[in-house]
Amino acid sequence: MAKRLGRQTVELENPPYIVAHAAVGGKKEQEGPLKRYFDHLTADDTFGEKTWEKAERQMQKLALQIALEKWGKDAQALDYLLAGDLLNQCVSSSFAARETQVPFWGLYGACSTMGESIALASLLIDGGGASTAGAVTSSHFCTAERQYRTPLAYGGQRTPTAQWTATAAGCSILSKEGRGPRVTCVTTGKIVDKGIKDANNMGAAMAPAAADTLLAHFRETGREPGYYDLVVTGDLGQLGREILLELTREDGLDLEGCHNDCGLLLYDLAKQDVHCGGSGCGCAGSVFNGYLLRQMEEGTLKKILLCPTGALLSPTTTQQGESIPSIAHAVAIEM
Amino acid sequence: MAKRLGRQTVELENPPYIVAHAAVGGKKEQEGPLKRYFDHLTADDTFGEKTWEKAERQMQKLALQIALEKWGKDAQALDYLLAGDLLNQCVSSSFAARETQVPFWGLYGACSTMGESIALASLLIDGGGASTAGAVTSSHFCTAERQYRTPLAYGGQRTPTAQWTATAAGCSILSKEGRGPRVTCVTTGKIVDKGIKDANNMGAAMAPAAADTLLAHFRETGREPGYYDLVVTGDLGQLGREILLELTREDGLDLEGCHNDCGLLLYDLAKQDVHCGGSGCGCAGSVFNGYLLRQMEEGTLKKILLCPTGALLSPTTTQQGESIPSIAHAVAIEM
Repeated sequence: MAKRLGRQTVELENPPYIVAHAAVGGKKEQEGPLKRYFDHLTADDTFGEKTWEKAERQMQKLALQIALEKWGKDAQALDYLLAGDLLNQCVSSSFAARETQVPFWGLYGACSTMGESIALASLLIDGGGASTAGAVTSSHFCTAERQYRTPLAYGGQRTPTAQWTATAAGCSILSKEGRGPRVTCVTTGKIVDKGIKDANNMGAAMAPAAADTLLAHFRETGREPGYYDLVVTGDLGQLGREILLELTREDGLDLEGCHNDCGLLLYDLAKQDVHCGGSGCGCAGSVFNGYLLRQMEEGTLKKILLCPTGALLSPTTTQQGESIPSIAHAVAIEM
Repeated sequence: MAKRLGRQTVELENPPYIVAHAAVGGKKEQEGPLKRYFDHLTADDTFGEKTWEKAERQMQKLALQIALEKWGKDAQALDYLLAGDLLNQCVSSSFAARETQVPFWGLYGACSTMGESIALASLLIDGGGASTAGAVTSSHFCTAERQYRTPLAYGGQRTPTAQWTATAAGCSILSKEGRGPRVTCVTTGKIVDKGIKDANNMGAAMAPAAADTLLAHFRETGREPGYYDLVVTGDLGQLGREILLELTREDGLDLEGCHNDCGLLLYDLAKQDVHCGGSGCGCAGSVFNGYLLRQMEEGTLKKILLCPTGALLSPTTTQQGESIPSIAHAVAIEM
């Protein structure tokens, strides 16, 4: 049985294995520094579909399909599928999953979804409710921009604090048995809202949630940051990372030397005009399932703490003058 | 450890108790036949707030607060909160939870959310990942109508197959220890899409998902419908119920004598101008946490199978000519 180490952290008794994984991306991801770690990349962001929404769900389907192929099994070998995305009513996930015939849990955690889905899948497997599960998420620049901000054709000027929504999807397959990296601890996030209202500054809104979850993780496990080869947040970007480092330092946790952010890894900030970095569910989804898990398999990384962050706003709440509640879920992954 | 009875059904080894519950509703719910089973009712659908969205989240806060009061503990006694709703980016749930400081799992299952949240909470508790959890959901006629259909002031004519989105919220508190009804089985839904495209006929879109989950439940448990005093779906309404009975009968499952639907229980269809019945996450949420659990506590019902259904469409998918994928999760609850 899982051991509860504190208010937010559970240590798993039978840590599930991540037995297969896949990352899918579009044009900008293909032009970025992690190009060679993706399983599928295309310069055609429509993915052959007629709408951006259909393109996004196509990415989720591809990510799941490739991960299943690498696992060598079909969808019927999955006890559960856990998925979510940024679109209204999470339609990328529901529509992508409708042909799979796999018992489905729909999640909403905004850009924390890769963390939420792996965390819940791990708890379900550790607890005996399932033997296997798939965790999937996606985002698409063109669906997110027009839903959250302005029509694409409008060509609005982006602010210096803006981030670039990744056109990408990621899938992890977890199993009670197998080989590979294991999910050993889950630190579940609380909703944190420090009053940031600028919908073009997600990093600042989400950094306090990441700080809260990471502080809880290290406090409750008694681990030092050096325990991990890498503590990696989802899409705080450049400004969000600075705020995170400052907030955690104030509480006596120095992450400077071991922290990075998927939003900083995915693109070349100096050359790709992404301002503060990448964002979107697919950012952590693809960087984790592409780059990071391969680094673990190759032995470059042995222990990582993945902590994707989500900003839980909607355009309606912004219009109504609300601040931005955020959340971050952390999962410890060890070889 | 939970016992997996089949592809979709898990029998819990240590069935958690529903130790407290609360239902909150608005004006139309106050005028309906279940009036005396609500914990909080008001003729003021604004709940004292300036926007409908804030009113909806106020309902969720109230439902959680009342359930906690009945339990005699505060939010810090909850290991997890699981919540979701119909609004874009599930903002009712995130904003309602932001002051609770409880580790939070955001869900999206549309109107199946009461089933999804109780099911996942039960699996987490049974598996040892948590000792206690809260499951919360809500819907509001005024937030849902303007988001999914037309502006309220437009006064659009409703079709005969339309249902009425409940202005209501429900909360169940589950615990490893205690007294009360227990969640003994979870049958997780798959996404089912039979090609229905009419966004004003949710019952028809969701009935095949309910049929799929209920057929799986009875097949995998080996139980007869008569095992339960009541098999109750979430918000199929009058037409959806007829389709469900026909679809299950074709597969040899006769639910006629033991089935009802929360959407038919919540309102007086002949007098309240709700056309095919109630709908929305708050429909199953309030009928279950108000009426049904009290019937169980009073001994009128001893065993029920709760099966809330969700239509996973968005206005965008409807505009793009897509059909409506649906899902239904069933939880067996026994005294």
